[in-house]
Amino acid sequence: MPQGQVETVPDDGLTTRQRRNRPLVVVHTGTMKGKSTAAFGLALRGWAQGWSIGVFQFVKSAKWKVGEEAAFRALGRVHEQTGEGGPVEWHKMGEGWSWVRKPGTEEDHAAAAREGWAEIRRRIEAQTHEVYVLDEFTYPMKWGWVDVAEVVEVLAARQGRQHVIITGRDAAPELVAAADLVMETGKVKHPMDAGQKGQRGIEW
Amino acid sequence: MPQGQVETVPDDGLTTRQRRNRPLVVVHTGTMKGKSTAAFGLALRGWAQGWSIGVFQFVKSAKWKVGEEAAFRALGRVHEQTGEGGPVEWHKMGEGWSWVRKPGTEEDHAAAAREGWAEIRRRIEAQTHEVYVLDEFTYPMKWGWVDVAEVVEVLAARQGRQHVIITGRDAAPELVAAADLVMETGKVKHPMDAGQKGQRGIEW
Repeated sequence: MPQGQVETVPDDGLTTRQRRNRPLVVVHTGTMKGKSTAAFGLALRGWAQGWSIGVFQFVKSAKWKVGEEAAFRALGRVHEQTGEGGPVEWHKMGEGWSWVRKPGTEEDHAAAAREGWAEIRRRIEAQTHEVYVLDEFTYPMKWGWVDVAEVVEVLAARQGRQHVIITGRDAAPELVAAADLVMETGKVKHPMDAGQKGQRGIEW
Repeated sequence: MPQGQVETVPDDGLTTRQRRNRPLVVVHTGTMKGKSTAAFGLALRGWAQGWSIGVFQFVKSAKWKVGEEAAFRALGRVHEQTGEGGPVEWHKMGEGWSWVRKPGTEEDHAAAAREGWAEIRRRIEAQTHEVYVLDEFTYPMKWGWVDVAEVVEVLAARQGRQHVIITGRDAAPELVAAADLVMETGKVKHPMDAGQKGQRGIEW
C-alpha cells in the first residue's frame, strides 16, 4: 500500500515531525466483528515498536477473544524474557479488574465499568502505556455508566506519546468528534447469513 | 459481542458441527488500511488455537507491516520453544520468495507473483497450513498476473481444515462470490485528511 499523500497542510504551528508523531485516538465502530480484531492488529504494531500495551476489556464473556489474549500474553512473556517488543498488560472487567482487591457483586456492572475507566484515567495521567486498547468501551458510555464528556476531556488533555484505541458499536458523536481516526467495518457477506454458526479460531 | 444468531438453516446436508467447522475463505477488501491489520488480527486467533499460519505478502515495500511480521515471528519462536500456539511461516515476494533459490530480475514482478501463487497452490493441495494470509493478493489478480478462475477453483477444491484470508483493494467479483466472509473497511475520518502523515507503530 503506498504511503498516503497529504492533501492539506494544517495551520497548527507543529513541525512535520511533531505532527507525524502526534499520538492518536482511534475509534473502531460499526456493526461487524472486525472492530476488535483490527484494534488488536494495530496493537501488534505497537508491541513490535517496544511500546507498552494495556488492554482493558469491558466485556463479560470469557469466551470471546481468548485467542488474542493468549497471543498477547505470549508476546508479553517474549518481552520479559528477551527484551523484544513491549510489555503487555491485559485486564478484564468480566472477572473483576485485576487491580481491585474485592470484586463487586455480580450484578454491579456499572460500578465495575466506572472503576475500569477510573483506572484507565489514572494510567493516562501517569503515562503508563503507549497503547491503550479499550475494548467494547463504547457500551458503558452508551449506557450512561461512564461520562462521555469526561472521557473526551481526559483524552484531549493526555500528555506524551499515548495512543488510545476504542472499540464497540454506537460510538458517541462527541467521541467520534474527538477521535483522529474512525474506522467503520461493514459486512459485505457473512457465513452466518448462510446459516453457519461461529467457530473456534475464527470468531474467538 | 454477543454470539450471532443464525437466520436461516441451509439445506446442505451438513450437521451443525460440520457446518460450524467448515473452513472459510475470507476477503478483506475496501479502500482503507484496516484490511491487512484485521487479517493479521484474525490470524492471531488461529495461532492461539495451535494452527499452522502461513503468511504470503504480495507487496514490494519492506517498510509496511514490519510490526506484524516481528510479532508473528516472535509468536512462531514461542511455538518452537514452548509448544504454545502454532507454527508461523512468513514469506515476502518483495525480497524474493524464500523457497526460490535464484530470485528473478528486479522487474519481473509478474513471474514472482505467479511463483508465489504456484507455491500457495502446492501448499493448499498438500494441506500445509490451517491459516493462509495472502496479503495484497488481489493485485496480481487484478493485473492479470494470476488467473482468478484458477484461484477460485483451487480454493473450492481444497481439503481438510484450511482457512484462507485474502486482502487488498478491488477484489474480483468471482473471488467475492467464492468467499464465505467478505469484510469491507471504510474510513469515517482519518488523520491524513487533517494533514498528518503516517507514523511508526500505527501505519507500519
